[in-house]
Amino acid sequence: MIGIDWGTSSFRAFRLARDGSIRDRRQGPRGILTVPDGRFADRLREEIGPWLAAGERHVLLCGMVGSRQGWVEAPYLPCPAGPADLARALLTVPFDWAEVKLVPGLAGQDETGVAEVMRGEETQIAGVLAAMGPDGLACLPGTHAKWARVAGGRITGFATHMTGEVFAALRGHTILARTMLDGAAADPAAFAAGVARAGTTGGLLHHLFGVRTRTLTGDLAESAAASYLSGLLIGHEVRAGLAGVPPGTVVHVIGAPELTALYAEAIAACGGIAERLNGEAAARGLALIGEAAAWN
Amino acid sequence: MIGIDWGTSSFRAFRLARDGSIRDRRQGPRGILTVPDGRFADRLREEIGPWLAAGERHVLLCGMVGSRQGWVEAPYLPCPAGPADLARALLTVPFDWAEVKLVPGLAGQDETGVAEVMRGEETQIAGVLAAMGPDGLACLPGTHAKWARVAGGRITGFATHMTGEVFAALRGHTILARTMLDGAAADPAAFAAGVARAGTTGGLLHHLFGVRTRTLTGDLAESAAASYLSGLLIGHEVRAGLAGVPPGTVVHVIGAPELTALYAEAIAACGGIAERLNGEAAARGLALIGEAAAWN
Repeated sequence: MIGIDWGTSSFRAFRLARDGSIRDRRQGPRGILTVPDGRFADRLREEIGPWLAAGERHVLLCGMVGSRQGWVEAPYLPCPAGPADLARALLTVPFDWAEVKLVPGLAGQDETGVAEVMRGEETQIAGVLAAMGPDGLACLPGTHAKWARVAGGRITGFATHMTGEVFAALRGHTILARTMLDGAAADPAAFAAGVARAGTTGGLLHHLFGVRTRTLTGDLAESAAASYLSGLLIGHEVRAGLAGVPPGTVVHVIGAPELTALYAEAIAACGGIAERLNGEAAARGLALIGEAAAWN
Repeated sequence: MIGIDWGTSSFRAFRLARDGSIRDRRQGPRGILTVPDGRFADRLREEIGPWLAAGERHVLLCGMVGSRQGWVEAPYLPCPAGPADLARALLTVPFDWAEVKLVPGLAGQDETGVAEVMRGEETQIAGVLAAMGPDGLACLPGTHAKWARVAGGRITGFATHMTGEVFAALRGHTILARTMLDGAAADPAAFAAGVARAGTTGGLLHHLFGVRTRTLTGDLAESAAASYLSGLLIGHEVRAGLAGVPPGTVVHVIGAPELTALYAEAIAACGGIAERLNGEAAARGLALIGEAAAWN
């Protein structure tokens, strides 16, 4: 089968063997926002035509392709939900050259009962359930970072943090832009200093202004300011994510190696225990849900 | 004398009587960023020519006009500092048609020892010292909101919160922009709900995403989303500003009536005591510092 994680700004397709291993892959910045006039079927055929020609007949999609801005809007499945629930709730998408189905996103609540939604992360979490075990806490860094609670092999609830998007907005559209060198290399010491600052009094809105004053006073190099800001934001996110979590709980951090490394460092600095899961979580999740749907 | 609060984006000039009362005023969006090629003298003459022709000979400036991006860079005066200290530290600016002096900004520290700077707010605080008394806490809402500690009639330290600028960056440059109606009227209930949300667990970066989910689920109207976001940010600022403040401390909120009303409401909702000071704090401060410099 073919598994595709089709997000807002990226497209990642996997040709999967019967055992779930990746036979081939395609990826690039061709997210749903780059598809003109709703021509998702044409785009899909362009992307995976050779695999279809080679005999693949089943395509499983996850991510924002199932949102209102995507191909077909898939209603959110309510929590608690695991791979079997997702497999039962697949939505069929009309496509002439193969059978195409869509993994629905999840609707849940944060710890205080406020509504939450995800699209794509449920599939990544499904992909790491075997590695993380049936109960635990999963953290998926990114534009909209997710912290999901898992019990009995199902996602029971989750909270989203706007960390990645807030970083970009602050860096690009506030006075902090002036104090940051473009293209500077990551600075681990500045990142750690930002994480540590997040643990002091004053609040995030005050800590942010310190990025400016610390560069003005020479306390922070302009080449290190972006790493410091990143540490500040991730530090605030991690402290909030760990609050109320029982001691000894392992946080399973899922994503690209650079980002999971930063989060693992921040989680350790905040007194938590992090386990990094850098593999192809989405590909494994798609394979697993396809298998649960008796489809591979 | 003439007193001028010349900021980044605004110009407010006051013709002051000997008793400090305002005889005349000019104000507009002609901040320092609108002055071409450093021609501050020309701009000043354009603005206050008629008052100079009427016999005024002393001009006292405060605000970002004394920054690196302004007319002349005035070194920051270290805290603690009060009106008499500021008056002794005035910087003379070359100008052919009157004697022009500049109130320096202040350098201080927040509660944790991190460097802080202000330009202009020191003059506003000087202007309300008589009303607030020699000891207390002053809060000046805005793009970069200031919380200043005052003891013995002098500013001893302060903390800046990027609240106003973060609001603009989030509203203009993140996914939250899509969930907010432009030009919607202020919504007091949504503002209060945002302030209340700031007091719950989860952290600001998570609470921000709730602006989106609450509008998606219909829990929050798009016309109310900007007020809710404002309440969320001001609520987080106020909680951080009140942390560690002895019970019974009055927070003197200085600024325009709309903004001081919102802050007073948020402070009360967070268990603090607010006193609003909506008068012309900058004009009074300039008059007072001019008087201390034996200049009016």
